[in-house]
Formats: sequence, structure tokens, C-alpha cells
Amino acid sequence: MLAHLFDRVGPVDHASAELARRRHARLAKPPGSLGALETLGAQLAAISGQCPPPVPQRPTVIVAAGDHGVHAQGVSDWPQGVTAAMVDTVVAGRAAVSAIARTVGAEVIVVDVGTMADRQTTGDDDGAVTVDAGSRDAGPRPVRLIDARVRRGTRDMSLEAAMTRDECAEAIRVGAHVAEQAIAAGTDLVAVGDLGIGNTTVSACLIAAYTGATPDSVTGPGANLDDQRVGRKIEVVTAALRRHGDDRDPFDTLASLGGLEHATLVGVMAACAAARVPVVLDGVITGAAALAAVALAPDIAGHLVAGHASTEPGAAPALTHLSATPLLRLDLRLGEGTGALLAVPLVQAAARTLGEMAFIDDVV
Amino acid sequence: MLAHLFDRVGPVDHASAELARRRHARLAKPPGSLGALETLGAQLAAISGQCPPPVPQRPTVIVAAGDHGVHAQGVSDWPQGVTAAMVDTVVAGRAAVSAIARTVGAEVIVVDVGTMADRQTTGDDDGAVTVDAGSRDAGPRPVRLIDARVRRGTRDMSLEAAMTRDECAEAIRVGAHVAEQAIAAGTDLVAVGDLGIGNTTVSACLIAAYTGATPDSVTGPGANLDDQRVGRKIEVVTAALRRHGDDRDPFDTLASLGGLEHATLVGVMAACAAARVPVVLDGVITGAAALAAVALAPDIAGHLVAGHASTEPGAAPALTHLSATPLLRLDLRLGEGTGALLAVPLVQAAARTLGEMAFIDDVV
Repeated sequence: MLAHLFDRVGPVDHASAELARRRHARLAKPPGSLGALETLGAQLAAISGQCPPPVPQRPTVIVAAGDHGVHAQGVSDWPQGVTAAMVDTVVAGRAAVSAIARTVGAEVIVVDVGTMADRQTTGDDDGAVTVDAGSRDAGPRPVRLIDARVRRGTRDMSLEAAMTRDECAEAIRVGAHVAEQAIAAGTDLVAVGDLGIGNTTVSACLIAAYTGATPDSVTGPGANLDDQRVGRKIEVVTAALRRHGDDRDPFDTLASLGGLEHATLVGVMAACAAARVPVVLDGVITGAAALAAVALAPDIAGHLVAGHASTEPGAAPALTHLSATPLLRLDLRLGEGTGALLAVPLVQAAARTLGEMAFIDDVV
Repeated sequence: MLAHLFDRVGPVDHASAELARRRHARLAKPPGSLGALETLGAQLAAISGQCPPPVPQRPTVIVAAGDHGVHAQGVSDWPQGVTAAMVDTVVAGRAAVSAIARTVGAEVIVVDVGTMADRQTTGDDDGAVTVDAGSRDAGPRPVRLIDARVRRGTRDMSLEAAMTRDECAEAIRVGAHVAEQAIAAGTDLVAVGDLGIGNTTVSACLIAAYTGATPDSVTGPGANLDDQRVGRKIEVVTAALRRHGDDRDPFDTLASLGGLEHATLVGVMAACAAARVPVVLDGVITGAAALAAVALAPDIAGHLVAGHASTEPGAAPALTHLSATPLLRLDLRLGEGTGALLAVPLVQAAARTLGEMAFIDDVV
């Protein structure tokens, strides 16, 4: 079933990208003067296979949430229960991602694929709960919480594989299913985000494993750890990588070192790429998931837009490995999809300028 | 009358900024993790004098257009008529700024304060024409063209003062009036932009005059001049500065070296600052105008948000002189307010996160 998912991802259409570049050279402006928007417009043409590309009108942020056994190693100052509390905060419309989603007109879907939350299931087919989380002035806006937990937290990856292969595959399937449903309902641009105390440690492991970077170069303060604690975190990452070994296939690496939310995001990215829907990456967690996705299906890479350059040190090598240049550099290090959502208007503007501007020959 | 305008600009409220910083430290996220959005939120609190600051809901881009006598010196590859043609293109909703305004939900006002356009006046009190310039999918959206020409093009500043003091004052008044009307009609965030063939040359002069930078360090290719022509442009800038001399007051400098659109933007900035409405700067032209505005009324500085770092070489020293850090670095060099508008959702997100997020103590 996973092979079927990944096999549906095709390459982007370089001919449409070339048409977009030629079109940009003829629009009513000095050639090249829209800078990164021109490059992005060409990528959108390549993803859609159309020039001009369609303007994304219905962005959705898919936030995958999970807990991590490696939390027991003291890699975060925050108690594990904060993951579930932040899921509730997003559902209540009061997280950073909620405020930014309202700003850019995005729908919010939270997929709990592995938190420790003590939550009643709802009886819905897919465990979805739709919550009215409107702000004072933006009117009600639905937030969907999908409780699709594969297990409550991963195992401690510094001691054993975080997930079995089956668990990892199931989390990928969950992500693909959520994205496919969102796309079927009209979503035409997907921002990805994460919630999970401890997941910068997990992401550092994945980035080191997929890129060959050293643990100390990709491990950072996450949610404000001090230098001494970052040292401890590097030891944990090093231990996990040693336990894991280096002669492993990309899927095993994800199962052994990853988080359930990372696996879910791999499924989201694959399903979006298969449907030719652009995916906007957030920070270091989504970057780590993107490395896994591209290791499993290289053609996914062309469908990914780097939204923001996180200050967490693993983010830059992950994007470099993906040959992706971030649109924004706002020194965010929050996750949740905040950086990805802030880039959504840039994606829309790239499509609009390419499609809606006059040609210079019609103007002068 | 200008003294009256500038006297109405007060300092921003540092106490509200401090309240905003303290509030950010208590929100449901690691302190500091919203990076530049936190700094911006504090500035919005300072401008409004409220914490949390109001969320800007009705952004307007004010695009000032003018022609330049110095065009005769061969400082641009583009004929002067392109200025008027681009005004028409904005009015038709088919310029880059039009597409980006639709993306971020901004109203567009074009103020022709000095083009060579051969246009009939309309008979309206203020020469305003409202044009339906909707896109296929965003629905109709009005564009206002205000024909308030002080004169048709400035004089050649390399040979004589570009404007008389009276002309310069009148252009400032036009800008203030347009901004005051927009604010009275509900505008709560103003992006500024420009149209004017030759105005990177004029901006280089203003930036050199107000910052003390050398002509070669602030003069660049504008709309794609080659290196040889940039050399010619530096000679023209140098000649204008020599003719101008350096013992002049800030107002004389603007009249002698500026463009009508620069003076208009000074008026826009002053009126917005007087009304505590944030102004988002675009690139090198609006940066040069901001230097003039701040030289005339230093308290304007606190009300300015740097939207985008233009690649034109004068832009960076202008922002440095204003102590402003640009939000976006997308390698744009187009003007029209494109870079300013792209930053509008960031300003809105900064206000929303500060006002709408839960406190961490209520979450965990």
C-alpha cells in the first residue's frame, strides 16, 4: 500500500516551469524584478503542469502531533503533557498557528497520531471533531481534530527502535488519508506543521541520518534549552544514531529514529505530491520529515516549498539537502506550521503575478 | 501648514511596547520563539499605544507616481511615457501591485502627483476616478486614481532644483490629504509604493544627501541598466549633489533633489504617523522618502515598518539610517509597493498572535 502511495508521485513538469520563466520575461516589469516570486511561480507551474499555474485559494495547515519516548532522557525542559495541552490549545483556536491561520485564511487540521493525551474517542468514523474556534473579529472558523493515534508515544529511540515498521507505515497512511480528504474537500495548498515535546531531538537524529551531518551540527536548543542541556541532547542523539547503525534503508531509518508525527507528515507530503498540490514546509521538524519523504520518493522534492528558515541548527542542512531556499527568515523557532503559514501569501502572490499581470508589449 | 502637519506627529509609546514584550513572554510558546513577529508586535503596540494592538483589517497601498526631469540625462533605458502607462496598468488592475493587493486584500490608491500623462481631468473635487479592476476570481475591487498633479514632471536636478519649495510643500500636502481621507474611510494600515521612470536616480541622490553615503555606494542598476550606464548614473547623481551643495536644510534637500512622488510619500507618512497608523515601506524609493520624512519629523521613524530589502544598493543604507530591519528579503526590485504589500500579512500576524494567543499558564 505504501508502494502504491509513493508510486503515484510523479516528477514535476519542467516544460511548464520554462514556460513560466519565459512568461515572466514578458510581463509588465523589468525582467527578474520580482525576484524569489518568479522562481516560485515557475515551481508552481512545474507542480501543476500549467502555465500560468492556478492561484491557491483554499490553504490548509495540517498539524501532526505525537509524543516521544526519548523524552525520558531529559531532552526537554517541558513536561510531555504539554503536547496534548497544545493540541487542545490549537483546537480552541488560541495557539500561534491559530492566529496565523486566521490571518492568511487557512483551515486548520490537527492530526493526533501519537500523543499521550487522555482523550475520549468521539465515535466518528475517523475520530474527527470539528470545533468552532473563531476569533473576535474573523468570525468562526472550523478546526478539525482527527484522533488517529497509532500508539501513545513512540519508544525511546536511544534504546530501541522508536516505531515498528508497521506502526510507521500506519502513521504514513494516516497522513496520506488526511491529506487526500482535505484535497477532495477543496484544499489546493497544504502547509505542514507539528506538535510534540522532544521532537527537535528526533528531528536532529533524522537529519543526521539522512544527510550525514554530525549530531553536534544539527542539534540545538529547541524550546530554549541551555548550553549544558544541549550537550546532553547531543549525547542522546549520538547514542540513538549509534544504536541505529548506518546500513539501513530509508524506511527503516524513519521507523527507528523518527516520530509518529514525522511519519504522518511523510504521508501528507506524498499524497499532496501525488495530487500535484504544493506543500509548504515549516521548520526543522517538517524539514526532517521532508528528508524522509524524499528518501522514500525522490520526486516529492519538486513539490515542496520551503516556507521559513528556522533558527534551530538542523533546519539549514535539511533545506540544503533538499535544494530548497526558504522564502522567509523571521527567526521563528516555534513549529506548529507557523512559518509555513506565513509563507502562504507569498505562494499565492507568485501565482497571481504570473497569471494576472499585463504583458509589457500591451502596456508601452 | 506643513509645520502643523509635522507637529501632529508624536512619539510612539514605549510603555505599550514594554507591555507587549512582557505579554509575549507569557504566551503559549517558548519565549522568543516568534522571532521577528515579537519585535513587530511590540512596535505595533508602541504605534497604537495599546497592548495588545488592534489587528489591521483594512490595508491600503498608496502608490505615488511622478516623472523626473533628470530622465533627460540618460539614467534609464525606459522611455518616460512608461510612468503614465504603468499608472494606467495599475488602474486596470493588471500591474504586479494589483495582483499582490488582491492576494493580501488591500485597496489600491494611485496618486498621480506629477506624471507627464496626457489625461483628461475628471471634474471630481479631488480628481478621483474609481475603477473596477477585479480579477477573475477575487471579485471586483476598486482602484482609485487621484489626479493631483502639482506639475508635469520635475526639473532636471542635475542642473537646477527639481521642485520649488512651494511645489514640494504642495506635493507633501497632497500625500497627507490622500492618507487622511483613506484613514477616515477605515484604512488602518498603509503600504507605500511608487511609480516613476528615473526615480532610482533621484532616490540615490536623496539617500546620499540624508545619510552621507557616497554616490557610488547607493546608485545601482534600477530597472536593469548595464554597468556602463550605471557609471553614467553615478556621474549624474554626483553632479546633482555638487550642484545642490551640502549646507541645506532637510526640506530644501527634498525640494532640490527629490521627486514629486517622494514628497507625496513624505506627506503620506506624516499623516499616518499623526493618526498612529503603521506605514509599511517598500524598497529604495519609499526608503529615500522615509529619510526625508524622518529628517523633517524624527518621530515618524517609530511608525515605519520596513517591509522588504530591495536589491537596489541604496535600500540597505537607507534602512540602516532608519534603524529598520526589513521583514522580507525576496530580491524584489520592482517598486509599486509590491514588497510592502507582501509584508502586510506579517504585520497582521504580529498583531493577531499578540492579541489572540492563550497564556502559557492557562494551558499547562
